Amino acid sequence: MAGGARADSGEDRFIARFFRPVAGAPEALGLQDDAALLTPPDGTDLVLTTDALVAGVHFFPDDAPASVARKALRVNLSDLAAKGAHPLGALLTLAVPKDIPEAWMEAFADALGADATAYGCPLLGGDTVSTPGPVTLSITAFGAVPKGAFVPRTGARPGQAILVSGTIGDAALGLLLRQAPEREAFARLSDDKRAHLLDRYLHPQPRLALAPALRAHAAAAMDVSDGLVGDLAKMLAASGCGGRIEAHRVPLSAAAATAVGHDAALRVTALTGGDDYEILACVPHTAVHGFVLAAARAGVPVALIGETRTEAGLDVLDASGRPLDLGVGSYSHF
Amino acid sequence: MAGGARADSGEDRFIARFFRPVAGAPEALGLQDDAALLTPPDGTDLVLTTDALVAGVHFFPDDAPASVARKALRVNLSDLAAKGAHPLGALLTLAVPKDIPEAWMEAFADALGADATAYGCPLLGGDTVSTPGPVTLSITAFGAVPKGAFVPRTGARPGQAILVSGTIGDAALGLLLRQAPEREAFARLSDDKRAHLLDRYLHPQPRLALAPALRAHAAAAMDVSDGLVGDLAKMLAASGCGGRIEAHRVPLSAAAATAVGHDAALRVTALTGGDDYEILACVPHTAVHGFVLAAARAGVPVALIGETRTEAGLDVLDASGRPLDLGVGSYSHF
Repeated sequence: MAGGARADSGEDRFIARFFRPVAGAPEALGLQDDAALLTPPDGTDLVLTTDALVAGVHFFPDDAPASVARKALRVNLSDLAAKGAHPLGALLTLAVPKDIPEAWMEAFADALGADATAYGCPLLGGDTVSTPGPVTLSITAFGAVPKGAFVPRTGARPGQAILVSGTIGDAALGLLLRQAPEREAFARLSDDKRAHLLDRYLHPQPRLALAPALRAHAAAAMDVSDGLVGDLAKMLAASGCGGRIEAHRVPLSAAAATAVGHDAALRVTALTGGDDYEILACVPHTAVHGFVLAAARAGVPVALIGETRTEAGLDVLDASGRPLDLGVGSYSHF
Repeated sequence: MAGGARADSGEDRFIARFFRPVAGAPEALGLQDDAALLTPPDGTDLVLTTDALVAGVHFFPDDAPASVARKALRVNLSDLAAKGAHPLGALLTLAVPKDIPEAWMEAFADALGADATAYGCPLLGGDTVSTPGPVTLSITAFGAVPKGAFVPRTGARPGQAILVSGTIGDAALGLLLRQAPEREAFARLSDDKRAHLLDRYLHPQPRLALAPALRAHAAAAMDVSDGLVGDLAKMLAASGCGGRIEAHRVPLSAAAATAVGHDAALRVTALTGGDDYEILACVPHTAVHGFVLAAARAGVPVALIGETRTEAGLDVLDASGRPLDLGVGSYSHF
């Protein structure tokens, strides 16, 4: 080629090697264009969400790259699920050190591709750049809801039931277990129970199966990413009402219940810790039966944990009806 | 509030203070939800693009925060323009040190809001996190094209005209001027010409006005972000053809032409440097007249710089028809 112009820069080879194999959807245009092209299904609104993850802040620098990729995609899918949406696709931006090992990139891209396929959320494009800092990535995910069916965070009204999916606190306990494995309550857990908590921290399970039930029955919903109590307080405040939950109704896994049984202080961790990626929903009482049935048909357990009210604020009550002192309610970056 | 649950974390106050005032579009849902809600116009396809910027890589750590915000949004708008799209909205992810000055945040958010308004691209949401590393941000922009009217990078065919908008090389010369202000060719420039080059590096001018002309007439287009020669080589390779451009036809601003007049080596910088954010288009010869007229009506100058051909590769010829030796053709991160 005359003139020395190169059509294949190192960056292009990097993208071709690691990401083109996992971005096979036609909308991705082979990752060869400036942009991706998406035709939303007729009769739908588009739901857009984005989350950023920084090594040392949102994950451990030595976490397996496959786990980092899964978490990055799944936390966004969890947001789509909470809004009643199904995924259409995602874009990735990835900032990595120049000397990132090829094996890291390969494992990251493979896991992202596998999850994109498993969740029906094709990787449509992105941007890969170098950074002198920690690995930093963000995923923007696009979903669709039937027109007008978006489930807002602001739709709660006084006198509605408060429900939550799955079990709460596993991820926060998993994180604490990683930070303090010698803690008595953890040391007494079986290997299986320890593994369960660690896995829940690393690998969120987005509740996409719950989306149709939320659309049909919920007045408000959000996913629990920064802790059940703090996130519920946010949803109630955004809706202009308050509420009350009973701590003993909040569902715990066998592993979390055992840990809390050994060390009652861990209940606060479970209620206020982050990374659950379960769904909180406010549901009119007349719709609760339908919601629970629809959730069960979708294979997602949901539990009634409290009720909304007119008076602002959130009370968290113990089994005897007394307010629990929880300290700080949710994780915040600033 | 009993139970200690807080509805307003530091992160929420951070978002409320800096970003809510500049995210007033109804689709942004007051930045109070997990997601944004967008209803694409009927009869359109959606165009998605994302770009990441890292302090110390894509901008100088001491660049004004307003300039960083503008560049972050505008490089994405430039991608939309190249695809023939008009903007619908954008999401921001921002990773900043915990001790980022409030004045930095305020100036960043204000400039982003002003640009979002000026370009009709409302900020719909995002994610703000802390990082132990450099300021890192990414913007994902959404645009719309009439169904089927997306202008691909892969549509060039042999025997088409190659055109480029505006002037080329100003930004790369502006960057070099910042890095080596003592260089003779720069020292001899007037203050106005130096200011022009520095401004073009800091503040891309996305060619959104050219989008309708591209949709109507161009077979292929892309924006010039990594250098004219390298990016054109990419577009031709992606289209399965080659081409030839004449270096003396590549339009230079008065400032760039003066600098190149003082120091001929700077022509290579202009042709291969990055950050132009002008539009390269391949246009069938029968459509060139219409394209040039439509561009002129839109207020965007375009220049014919060469022609595509069957044979692969890209030749860059000097005024006497000899190939120029350009060395490396475009910036790459890896």
